[in-house]
Amino acid sequence: MSRMTRTHSALPADPSAAARELLPRLRDTEPLVQCLTNPVTVNLVANGLLALGATPAMTDVPTEAGPFARVASAVLVNLGTPHAEQREAMVEAASAAHDAGTPWVLDPVAVGTLPVRTALAHRLLGHSPAVIRGNASEIIALAGHGAGGRGVDSADTTEAARDSALHLARTSGAVVAVSGETDLVTDGETVVLIANGHRLLTRITGAGCLLGAVVAAFASTASAQADRLAATVAACATYAVAAELAAEQARRPGSFAVAFLDALDAVTPEDVAERARITVERPAAVPAGRTA
Amino acid sequence: MSRMTRTHSALPADPSAAARELLPRLRDTEPLVQCLTNPVTVNLVANGLLALGATPAMTDVPTEAGPFARVASAVLVNLGTPHAEQREAMVEAASAAHDAGTPWVLDPVAVGTLPVRTALAHRLLGHSPAVIRGNASEIIALAGHGAGGRGVDSADTTEAARDSALHLARTSGAVVAVSGETDLVTDGETVVLIANGHRLLTRITGAGCLLGAVVAAFASTASAQADRLAATVAACATYAVAAELAAEQARRPGSFAVAFLDALDAVTPEDVAERARITVERPAAVPAGRTA
Amino acid sequence: MSRMTRTHSALPADPSAAARELLPRLRDTEPLVQCLTNPVTVNLVANGLLALGATPAMTDVPTEAGPFARVASAVLVNLGTPHAEQREAMVEAASAAHDAGTPWVLDPVAVGTLPVRTALAHRLLGHSPAVIRGNASEIIALAGHGAGGRGVDSADTTEAARDSALHLARTSGAVVAVSGETDLVTDGETVVLIANGHRLLTRITGAGCLLGAVVAAFASTASAQADRLAATVAACATYAVAAELAAEQARRPGSFAVAFLDALDAVTPEDVAERARITVERPAAVPAGRTA
Repeated sequence: MSRMTRTHSALPADPSAAARELLPRLRDTEPLVQCLTNPVTVNLVANGLLALGATPAMTDVPTEAGPFARVASAVLVNLGTPHAEQREAMVEAASAAHDAGTPWVLDPVAVGTLPVRTALAHRLLGHSPAVIRGNASEIIALAGHGAGGRGVDSADTTEAARDSALHLARTSGAVVAVSGETDLVTDGETVVLIANGHRLLTRITGAGCLLGAVVAAFASTASAQADRLAATVAACATYAVAAELAAEQARRPGSFAVAFLDALDAVTPEDVAERARITVERPAAVPAGRTA
Repeated sequence: MSRMTRTHSALPADPSAAARELLPRLRDTEPLVQCLTNPVTVNLVANGLLALGATPAMTDVPTEAGPFARVASAVLVNLGTPHAEQREAMVEAASAAHDAGTPWVLDPVAVGTLPVRTALAHRLLGHSPAVIRGNASEIIALAGHGAGGRGVDSADTTEAARDSALHLARTSGAVVAVSGETDLVTDGETVVLIANGHRLLTRITGAGCLLGAVVAAFASTASAQADRLAATVAACATYAVAAELAAEQARRPGSFAVAFLDALDAVTPEDVAERARITVERPAAVPAGRTA
Repeated sequence: MSRMTRTHSALPADPSAAARELLPRLRDTEPLVQCLTNPVTVNLVANGLLALGATPAMTDVPTEAGPFARVASAVLVNLGTPHAEQREAMVEAASAAHDAGTPWVLDPVAVGTLPVRTALAHRLLGHSPAVIRGNASEIIALAGHGAGGRGVDSADTTEAARDSALHLARTSGAVVAVSGETDLVTDGETVVLIANGHRLLTRITGAGCLLGAVVAAFASTASAQADRLAATVAACATYAVAAELAAEQARRPGSFAVAFLDALDAVTPEDVAERARITVERPAAVPAGRTA
């Protein structure tokens, strides 16, 4: 099969081992994560990165964004409310990141339903994101298979986006992470399912945005694109386990958001190893259709 | 009297009955509330809508804002920090909302004192907001009766804005809600006073902004403009009762803001029915002056 | 010595006396603090000012920002993410503030490393800020002595910025406050060290931004530039003591941010007097070098 000639992701036999290894590395290196993101949730994104152990910097002014992306550890480009000046900075940052070898993450918020960000997302794909993270509707739309959801809300299940995620990963070269009740992560060959998290994540704004930033922070710990599947799985698992820890402390959305930040600070590699419910489906399980 | 020929708002004999009916309807329908609002409080607005049971979407990019307003359940236009690109999107959204029959709420922050937003507010009035929500100084200024307050702070009492609110409601066709220690809501005929709430609401940023969004969410549950007086009263009462519940859990502003989000999630129609202190002044009590 | 002919700051024999006097004055006057700041932390800045007892207003639209600065009690200009329209408003506000005698505070976020804000900061210096507040790297860079830090993170210690702070204070006429584990405040002659605070302040976003706003609020209580050294010391000490109180209530970043807002509301002049560890180094101790 021709697709087996592609660079293949190394996922350890025990997939939660990645989180055990990469979370301490993240906290040791305090990666500088540049975020070009929306004002709605930018405060949570910055505080979530700090709580986890990374260093956020929200540099999104044109002529500053590009040079910064060259020295950052990782970059997040989130299309939540992409105003004209920020769009210019996003293209600049993505281009510079790709050029400098800085891994960058695309979060295609509400792509498919809204024209400005849809055009921008397709343009940004040309700058080779390391990871694309979205909900099912967004991934289906970005893969060209559907119309997208309504805003940040996903009308589709993660499983419904499986083929689109595989297709998008193969055509873009990025790891694709689909967020939902169960997260699905794929490099276009291996599919990993992470059945953690808590429904309270859907009751606070920015849970998806912050996950995109956490994926970027973890991506900085991977030395090559081949390791980014493992890094993305580690990010999603750590994040979802932290949500479970938080939900044990708080049962309503206001206090949950506070407890979640505390949990991102408190969560240990052992917590992730004990609680993560990760299923790996090796390439043999990949359906034959839809190869680009 | 000529004004009796206007479409007349149906307010039930027991005014808290509206909250009992509309709050469950809101939570069942999870209305999609598009907010074009300021970055200062946008996070609270989004989280408050989610906590209450609505679905926020902060789409405020020109060429996206208009089409989105056509499919949204309701729209909030808040003039907190109206930069040029957002101003363009606000006019687009208000126009599309009016055209598509989507109820939209105008929050004329600091109108009267500041020139850009004052001109914009008057332009937006031409697109027939369903509800206008502001503090006393803003309503007085928008009605053309005074100079406005200093920023979001209101120098005037709700009662001082009564005539301005009646006048503005009659000339604009909107329900007008004046926020203060006692809220005053009117359709230009009936005046409703809601004597709930808590002074801690004045110690957190965005309490007014979020109320505007909650009014929009409730407006989506009203099938016609004639029902929007009841929907606006239900919004103000639910909001103010939630603040009272929160103040029983937290006595200082940081923890109050968290408890308030929890209370918006927890508040029940029965809480509102038991606690709401609502007075209805029927049209006979309306002073004769100032009819447009 | 020629520099002794400069207006000299009056610092009381007991430096914490300033906090004892100025904090109640701030709460009595509820100063209107106009903030032109970044969307990342603007919500914390507004809530922190409200918790302390000031009145925030985030007016940053061109043609509104200048007139507002004339009537505000104080102005904060924070260069966190200075987009084009906000840059225009910042120059307008700083110019109007200087012209009207409104004290204004410059927070030169990430100056030195990033070109747009570096040029803007130097331009703004021409409008005579009352206080400049930054971390060590930023103050060193703004004084022309180094390359700046990486974003809001400071690579240098406060003590390493001592000479730069003295130089910048003398050339700009502003009080300079360098934030770090120990804060250093100087008017170019007297150096004051404040050894309070808590490491959790480095784990939440916006601790520096909010301090800039608190400095602005305190600056409004000083009747002349000569009193602004004392006002800035009072601001830094009050802020750092509130952080210590908060850290006694919460040990992780999410809950610490909430407790910190509560502590800004709760902190008393007596708390500051009891806990403040302030050292004053009189002009005799100033090294001779680097006078402009």
